[in-house]
Amino acid sequence: MTNRHETKDITLDFTRITAAAAGEEHGISDKQLKGLQNRAGKIHRALMELRQKGEVGFYDLPNSDTSRLKKFASRVREKYENLVVLGIGGSALGTTAVHAALRHGFSHLLTKRKRNGYPKLFVVDNIDPDYFSELMDVLDPKKTLFNVISKSGTTAETMAQFMIVFDRLKKRLKGKWKKRVVITTDPAKGLLRAMVDEYNLASFEIPPNIGGRFSVCSAAGLMPLACAGVDIDGFLAGAAQMSARCETGNIVDNPAYLLGSLLYLADTAKGKSMAVMMPYSTKLYGMADWFRQLWAESLGKRRDVDGREVYVGQTPIKALGVTDQHSQVQLYVEGPFDKVVIFVKVENFAKRVDIPELFTDKKELSYLAGSSLNELIKVEMEGTRYALEKHKKVSITITLPEISANTLGQFIFMLEAATAFAGGLYGVNPFDQPGVEFGKNYSYAVMGRKGYEKLRNEIKEQSGKIPARIL
Amino acid sequence: MTNRHETKDITLDFTRITAAAAGEEHGISDKQLKGLQNRAGKIHRALMELRQKGEVGFYDLPNSDTSRLKKFASRVREKYENLVVLGIGGSALGTTAVHAALRHGFSHLLTKRKRNGYPKLFVVDNIDPDYFSELMDVLDPKKTLFNVISKSGTTAETMAQFMIVFDRLKKRLKGKWKKRVVITTDPAKGLLRAMVDEYNLASFEIPPNIGGRFSVCSAAGLMPLACAGVDIDGFLAGAAQMSARCETGNIVDNPAYLLGSLLYLADTAKGKSMAVMMPYSTKLYGMADWFRQLWAESLGKRRDVDGREVYVGQTPIKALGVTDQHSQVQLYVEGPFDKVVIFVKVENFAKRVDIPELFTDKKELSYLAGSSLNELIKVEMEGTRYALEKHKKVSITITLPEISANTLGQFIFMLEAATAFAGGLYGVNPFDQPGVEFGKNYSYAVMGRKGYEKLRNEIKEQSGKIPARIL
Repeated sequence: MTNRHETKDITLDFTRITAAAAGEEHGISDKQLKGLQNRAGKIHRALMELRQKGEVGFYDLPNSDTSRLKKFASRVREKYENLVVLGIGGSALGTTAVHAALRHGFSHLLTKRKRNGYPKLFVVDNIDPDYFSELMDVLDPKKTLFNVISKSGTTAETMAQFMIVFDRLKKRLKGKWKKRVVITTDPAKGLLRAMVDEYNLASFEIPPNIGGRFSVCSAAGLMPLACAGVDIDGFLAGAAQMSARCETGNIVDNPAYLLGSLLYLADTAKGKSMAVMMPYSTKLYGMADWFRQLWAESLGKRRDVDGREVYVGQTPIKALGVTDQHSQVQLYVEGPFDKVVIFVKVENFAKRVDIPELFTDKKELSYLAGSSLNELIKVEMEGTRYALEKHKKVSITITLPEISANTLGQFIFMLEAATAFAGGLYGVNPFDQPGVEFGKNYSYAVMGRKGYEKLRNEIKEQSGKIPARIL
Repeated sequence: MTNRHETKDITLDFTRITAAAAGEEHGISDKQLKGLQNRAGKIHRALMELRQKGEVGFYDLPNSDTSRLKKFASRVREKYENLVVLGIGGSALGTTAVHAALRHGFSHLLTKRKRNGYPKLFVVDNIDPDYFSELMDVLDPKKTLFNVISKSGTTAETMAQFMIVFDRLKKRLKGKWKKRVVITTDPAKGLLRAMVDEYNLASFEIPPNIGGRFSVCSAAGLMPLACAGVDIDGFLAGAAQMSARCETGNIVDNPAYLLGSLLYLADTAKGKSMAVMMPYSTKLYGMADWFRQLWAESLGKRRDVDGREVYVGQTPIKALGVTDQHSQVQLYVEGPFDKVVIFVKVENFAKRVDIPELFTDKKELSYLAGSSLNELIKVEMEGTRYALEKHKKVSITITLPEISANTLGQFIFMLEAATAFAGGLYGVNPFDQPGVEFGKNYSYAVMGRKGYEKLRNEIKEQSGKIPARIL
């Protein structure tokens, strides 16, 4: 699962989103790209100032000291059969994505020895009672470590899960329950930090200047990933490698800024309101899910930084190659001109699977005989890209030389930096999420949390005002 | 896993997409809905004519005879530890979705006894060499049955998988390999049917008038589902129950037509170019994926039935409640007015998970103490819906009284009928997928299939004409 000393850069191929390929109506010209440079320079300086002042922390995570994390992880590896992350959103998606990319695809079905001794990782990011109850069925609490992750320490879903687990562990293990819980939260503030102190629990820190969706390179992601056998140093080295490529404010030399600029222009100048991330790799599918949160929550905003109503945000969509060729590609090729497709390509898979020389008498199959799944998946990606191009649909291709901790680190840092930068282009704050509070407050009000009486009354009064229409 | 004799109807709540709730600009008025009735009547008659003539077959699947399927399934249950479906698109998505909805959430980790003797089901819908190779690691060929599903018998991905499996089985099991393969394909035509005859293999039929994305109620879906323990009679009974509600051509009385009309109007009259299906249930997430194919591939079309260029199609998006509240809801609430959200709600979950009366001294958590995950997930869905409503974002709520074979049958039939009907509203053929051929032909050409020499030359000539732009 570890891949050290990989240094090959991931690449960004934007040939098929240029006006040269897709025409002036749908493609982006060099002039348009250059037209952003002046703003880009200002945004770059503003971001670097936030970084210097310590207000935005994700830039510096690649240089973190991981020694305590690795030491802790090696003990977990010895002692536990299962590691369960209780977390949601930014406390779940990055871990799930990196783990899925680097583990054996069916690792839960392997013996511990075949998993190289690493525990099974479960990331529990929903409160569906059936799902949660069934998860409890398969976990032996004596062999399971729970990692509760919430920066604020008050995330409703995570805390509800924790309360249930806390109760079961206490009943089952008495005083020993404390050994089964490790908390990842703010270093000083919040309920979970208070519990760490109250019960003397193991804990890790999410720095206050790291937002959830930018936290995979902090302990929020690194702790469970290290326990599950990911080479976290290689991962951070990859992030650092990309960070070095992103130090310039020059759009055409900075992969993150180039990507952010292309997506921004596609949305605002070319009507591509959707950005489809489509890895041609089952293992990278989770990366598209991780990107979905990053892009949507950072840029989907009602107001710009000056308080004006803007209602902006490009919708990120996840798709899987080749699978979605038999589901979504008909629409992408023939439907409206409202998407940019971001192909994520793997140059070299870890395995080679040959297609045997069979059925050579059958003319419909003979082209497959003697080929390989490796060739087939590559050619199919090119075929889909070609079909899009022929229909004037634009695409970008990000190529990973291979799937490794290093290349994933590069990929993640590039998208984080691209997103922060795109916030500047849209004129919004990419680090907040005011729209989420609304639904949260509703839940607090309906469930009787103190201090929400006024909203509770408002909801009561409103209910029934609009005539219900149900069939 | 079986739930017989359920008869409660699923409901369609469209309160929050009406103009009364969302205003004239974003909501749909009764006048607009009624304005479609004349066309709806014509579309209804045209579809019923296609049904009568036997050209469109999915309507009649709920009345299929399942006796042979069930008999076959009971033998599979006795003999096999694993059932592997080799199929993609319509040969995979419905099976995956229904199975995920009805099985234990972690069934692969249970013993065969705890799975009630049913085999583990693997649906292999990608050709990623790493993923495929790792799947082979965990399958003992002696205990595994492979179900190869392709209506045409020439699907490249499925046939490539089959060639690899065929070769391995033959080498490992010699003449006995034939017992490990069952084919589901056209009753008379195609390569797979010819192989059934050549090797005397077990087989099932996909009627020629059933398209892949409408095939989950045919043997393509029912065979693996029956083997995995799904009550396929209950499933078809649910489909029949919905079919009875969809016999009228009257929009306001026919749930499928009502849903199809609302989504069509949202797209074409209100600028909601995206339809987000968001089940509040981990187990129903696959249903959103199944719907994605159905809606995208049926309606995403360059040309209408008269051959005019129209480039239509609403983009279906899958989201998961509550999980995506911490990922996508910020964008849905505060971003552009370009979406309709289809909530899928479960009235009664199978399990109840109480949140214990803990931490009552901590004011941030006391509202959770003594509640349940069941209440929390329900209130959070309402909170998200409320937040959308407050921001003039429209939504529809489909409620399943419970998750059962019956309610899934209802749900699936409703969406199939809605999609066929929406094809009429958009003026396109919902049963073809011409845009997919393009990419397929590219693959054939590049991989050297005979008869594609001209395209191969064209691709060669074009390559390099557009200057590559790579960073």
